[in-house]
Amino acid sequence: MKKKANTDVLRFVRPNILNLRPYEAKEIPCGVKLDANESPYPEKLSARTLKSIETNRYPDPQAEALRKAYAQKNLPAKIRGIEWLLHGNGSDELIFNLVCVFGGPVIYPVPTFSMYGKIAAALGQRVVEVPLQSGFDIDDSALLSAAKKQKGGIIFLSSPNNPTGNSFSAQKILRVIEESGCVVVVDEAYQPFSARKSFMSCLGKYPNLAILRTLSKVGLAALRVGFLIAEPGLVAQVNKVRLPFNVNSFSQAIAVDSISRASGLRKHIRGIVSERKRLHRELSGIKGVTAYPSDANFILFKVPDPERVYKEALRNGVLIRNLCEAVEGCLRVTVGSGKENEKFIRAIKRTLE
Amino acid sequence: MKKKANTDVLRFVRPNILNLRPYEAKEIPCGVKLDANESPYPEKLSARTLKSIETNRYPDPQAEALRKAYAQKNLPAKIRGIEWLLHGNGSDELIFNLVCVFGGPVIYPVPTFSMYGKIAAALGQRVVEVPLQSGFDIDDSALLSAAKKQKGGIIFLSSPNNPTGNSFSAQKILRVIEESGCVVVVDEAYQPFSARKSFMSCLGKYPNLAILRTLSKVGLAALRVGFLIAEPGLVAQVNKVRLPFNVNSFSQAIAVDSISRASGLRKHIRGIVSERKRLHRELSGIKGVTAYPSDANFILFKVPDPERVYKEALRNGVLIRNLCEAVEGCLRVTVGSGKENEKFIRAIKRTLE
Repeated sequence: MKKKANTDVLRFVRPNILNLRPYEAKEIPCGVKLDANESPYPEKLSARTLKSIETNRYPDPQAEALRKAYAQKNLPAKIRGIEWLLHGNGSDELIFNLVCVFGGPVIYPVPTFSMYGKIAAALGQRVVEVPLQSGFDIDDSALLSAAKKQKGGIIFLSSPNNPTGNSFSAQKILRVIEESGCVVVVDEAYQPFSARKSFMSCLGKYPNLAILRTLSKVGLAALRVGFLIAEPGLVAQVNKVRLPFNVNSFSQAIAVDSISRASGLRKHIRGIVSERKRLHRELSGIKGVTAYPSDANFILFKVPDPERVYKEALRNGVLIRNLCEAVEGCLRVTVGSGKENEKFIRAIKRTLE
Repeated sequence: MKKKANTDVLRFVRPNILNLRPYEAKEIPCGVKLDANESPYPEKLSARTLKSIETNRYPDPQAEALRKAYAQKNLPAKIRGIEWLLHGNGSDELIFNLVCVFGGPVIYPVPTFSMYGKIAAALGQRVVEVPLQSGFDIDDSALLSAAKKQKGGIIFLSSPNNPTGNSFSAQKILRVIEESGCVVVVDEAYQPFSARKSFMSCLGKYPNLAILRTLSKVGLAALRVGFLIAEPGLVAQVNKVRLPFNVNSFSQAIAVDSISRASGLRKHIRGIVSERKRLHRELSGIKGVTAYPSDANFILFKVPDPERVYKEALRNGVLIRNLCEAVEGCLRVTVGSGKENEKFIRAIKRTLE
């Protein structure tokens, strides 16, 4: 029998993958980490909860206790049933599932959360990027005309938007939901930090509306728990491509604990919002800095020499995010604890004043 | 502006999804759970490890400590570098990633692990199912001719195979690797329970060979940790579609602990293998029962009236798996602890003798 040599694995790879670059989450060691939109406040672990987990048993595939706890505390009364809710291994996984189910084109404004585009590319779906208007609001007409040209697909709107920090105009979002003929995903990862109304109140009215939420910004990034909230008919379709044991037992149990004693989470959120106001005021007071308004747990700001400011902050032990590739001249700082923010402000002042 | 009514979400759903059914992992409450190929032995949790986890920080996206620990203890010396290894949220997720990267057709023998087909369908890839020969070995010639007819794609071989329990002929697997012109994934989920050699020793020779491993069968199903082991070139491609924070902090830390004190895992595996021998002997001694040989942590067996045997076992507090749809007249029992297996044997005897 003649043996064929298989010398090159690349010839097996789908063309849309060959050109992809992996997501690089660089780990830069640094005393004060204000780069990843994490909460500065860890949640307490209950020893009893941890002990109750049998490591040898599979997690609850339906994550019933988790969905019940989340629905009870977070969904509007009219849609409190868990059939409106699907659990993901972070909202990343739910974005993946949504694109699997609804296909492309995948339409989103830019700049925004980078995973919409990366996941679309991984799944070989066409991407349409529609620039934000000045002031960082969405260009609803341009989104609609992209949707109509492409016929169907899925639109992702992160509101409040990462990395710009603002919420998009509710009226414009509604127009996109009503007129696009697409599934419209409003990613409310940062909504808990905003005073604006969640789009959850629109559920029941728009079968093409899906909302994403996550526990990653409110103190539980280690767990990887995200939620999709939508009409049961939409949830049922996405559930078909969900891997059965996608959220592990530890994440389920710890999340249930934290959600159930929600007062802790709420207190931390209030603390972050109040620190954000202070941080914004202080940043705005520094000569040469433009700090953009934020509804999220981070602030985007513009400086004359962003590379230098970024490096000087790092040299002073504060890691922030350099966003110059996405927004000209801009850096992003996560709202940390009072002390962390002080240290950041001191570092910026030292560089710019 | 005229508003369009979006009355039906189904019109947005891709046709390949509409016909899909979700994976149903039914939860049937039962005292003795021998249905899911779980280990009867939970792993101990280290309070110190758990305390060290900051819930508010994202997991290590590269899972470096985890990959290092696994490579150190499990990979052949010649390929001990972690660039041969990728971590998944269970091997389910790695199957998903593999099909994303290499596309279809997705070829596998039947009966086998159901997720190969389900994931292929979720990703809209063509599936080719090639029946096992009598004796449950693969039909290598039929697999090769399927691969050649379809041109390229990916072949999944679960060896030892779920649900039949046997290892496939190593020579036949090698022929498929050498001649198929496909990526060949040898899923070694159950290999730790087998006396046969792992295909890891073939790595370095075949760039189209990928191996899957999991911690789910050896006492850590709650964590959802799987590994892909393959040439760094193949691993790098699959890494492109991996979601950055796919294995959460708790799973990473607890798995590192268990892998590092591997003697515990090994002792449990030896216990399961020895119980499997006893269980096989006892089952084979019951009139009307055909117990198939097993290299895994479960045994497939044939009985005259499987529905009745399944229900009677359940009535006696023992949950097993009814596999009649996959293999005529067959049930599958996971090897439990000595006590659990006794209870199972008593229930079967009561029904059949």
